[in-house]
Amino acid sequence: MCGPRDCTGAERDAAREVGRLLAERGAVVLCGGYTGVMAAVTEGARSAGGLVVGVLSRADREGAAPGLSAAIATGMGEARNAVLVASADAVIVIGGSWGTLSELALAVRRGDVPVVQLGGWQVLDERGEQLPGVTRAADAEEAVRLAVA
Amino acid sequence: MCGPRDCTGAERDAAREVGRLLAERGAVVLCGGYTGVMAAVTEGARSAGGLVVGVLSRADREGAAPGLSAAIATGMGEARNAVLVASADAVIVIGGSWGTLSELALAVRRGDVPVVQLGGWQVLDERGEQLPGVTRAADAEEAVRLAVA
Amino acid sequence: MCGPRDCTGAERDAAREVGRLLAERGAVVLCGGYTGVMAAVTEGARSAGGLVVGVLSRADREGAAPGLSAAIATGMGEARNAVLVASADAVIVIGGSWGTLSELALAVRRGDVPVVQLGGWQVLDERGEQLPGVTRAADAEEAVRLAVA
Amino acid sequence: MCGPRDCTGAERDAAREVGRLLAERGAVVLCGGYTGVMAAVTEGARSAGGLVVGVLSRADREGAAPGLSAAIATGMGEARNAVLVASADAVIVIGGSWGTLSELALAVRRGDVPVVQLGGWQVLDERGEQLPGVTRAADAEEAVRLAVA
Repeated sequence: MCGPRDCTGAERDAAREVGRLLAERGAVVLCGGYTGVMAAVTEGARSAGGLVVGVLSRADREGAAPGLSAAIATGMGEARNAVLVASADAVIVIGGSWGTLSELALAVRRGDVPVVQLGGWQVLDERGEQLPGVTRAADAEEAVRLAVA
Repeated sequence: MCGPRDCTGAERDAAREVGRLLAERGAVVLCGGYTGVMAAVTEGARSAGGLVVGVLSRADREGAAPGLSAAIATGMGEARNAVLVASADAVIVIGGSWGTLSELALAVRRGDVPVVQLGGWQVLDERGEQLPGVTRAADAEEAVRLAVA
Repeated sequence: MCGPRDCTGAERDAAREVGRLLAERGAVVLCGGYTGVMAAVTEGARSAGGLVVGVLSRADREGAAPGLSAAIATGMGEARNAVLVASADAVIVIGGSWGTLSELALAVRRGDVPVVQLGGWQVLDERGEQLPGVTRAADAEEAVRLAVA
Repeated sequence: MCGPRDCTGAERDAAREVGRLLAERGAVVLCGGYTGVMAAVTEGARSAGGLVVGVLSRADREGAAPGLSAAIATGMGEARNAVLVASADAVIVIGGSWGTLSELALAVRRGDVPVVQLGGWQVLDERGEQLPGVTRAADAEEAVRLAVA
């Protein structure tokens, strides 16, 4: 699950719901492990008894979301975005930021996992047209259904 | 310098020109080190006697562009995109691909280096509006001028 | 918990016991996630209901130990040794291999976590003398006591 | 070329000589890019007109050795040791430190490049015996000859 630190209340609610639904399906949730969308998905998954692993950019746990089942302090800075995306069976993106966009791009680049976007930024090619590779979901439930399918 | 393996002839020409101009200004050129835009920028920089370091995704040099002054075989897969971007004083992006987009996003995310785009994909926010952080150049010369400024 | 793929029966037993004892104390166990000592510590920790995260070198889960609670497929090759070591609150090393030695060295290099060794290789300085930084344990119980202290 | 920040005058001299000899043979020198042995090898290689790439642990160039032809600011902390070692055609280790030992171990772990040690620490197996994989050189000249062979 990818998403920005700075997010709207609606994005936070969607992330919490996505976390809860993933945990109910028995999925292990991976996220960046800090605030905003990351903390919300952690909260949601934990409320349903799920397992959440935070893949942190820092080499220590400063600022990590409370409630993470485990934290991997990669110490790799933003290169951890690639590690996070490489480790997932599906990627759900909520909201927009440049860090989040890098995760979306790296996920589509993989080519072998579903990439589902809930709100957030848009990417167009040089002619202003939509690019294949990302599926848009209308809400948390649809996002999880598309990701876990 | 970031850009895709698969590129148009015009993108290749622009990359060659960017490489040449950077070398003429005495800049060390960093790139992903493979084919397409990466090979073209290498060719251009070398033609002007410049230094080009390829930051490779693989742990060996298979497929590396001929002419690289040095190759760093990171063995990190796409996480090398973050290493490449972290090591630059300015980032010029030519053409579009998901890997290239991840580099563009990571570069803007840094917030402390010029990010210049020549052609390629567009990123819009949730309302369909342009986002700050990337400067568009009309041609190779303007791209280099904006990057090195 | 660090250790080689190729290990003796005694090392395997010690690793299983270390895993069990860590889980009983409520510790999350991090390991490299493959066979040998890594699989044994996973088995031990899981037998006591513990949580085990495998920090894999590969970008997929091929060859990962069965029973891992979660796997982080870093795709970074041996650079994952540094990630594993950076993420731990204490490092227990069982048995010897060059990969394991790199983890031992990186752990002492950190300077802020206990590094406990059970059997395995020895490192001497240029005069053939022991170096400070690693504590030797006689058995699994002592290793865990020293690590968790 | 791997070696510690804190080194003796003799190690510094040996590193300078190794750098010079590598440059004379046309080899590109890779090193960790900071002070001590790293700065000395850089100095030696540059004095002979050679190319030196520093693979830095930090995400910026603070503290980088003067004279580097190019710096790769990996921002990966000690995981850059693995990147450095993965990128070399041969590894020469001068002097001892835990970081240096991790590079020695990762280099032998690769199994496909010569690993040559000049002074520094010793690694023994559980029975106190020498391990294969590292060749000891008597001086800088022998080290370079064994590495480049």
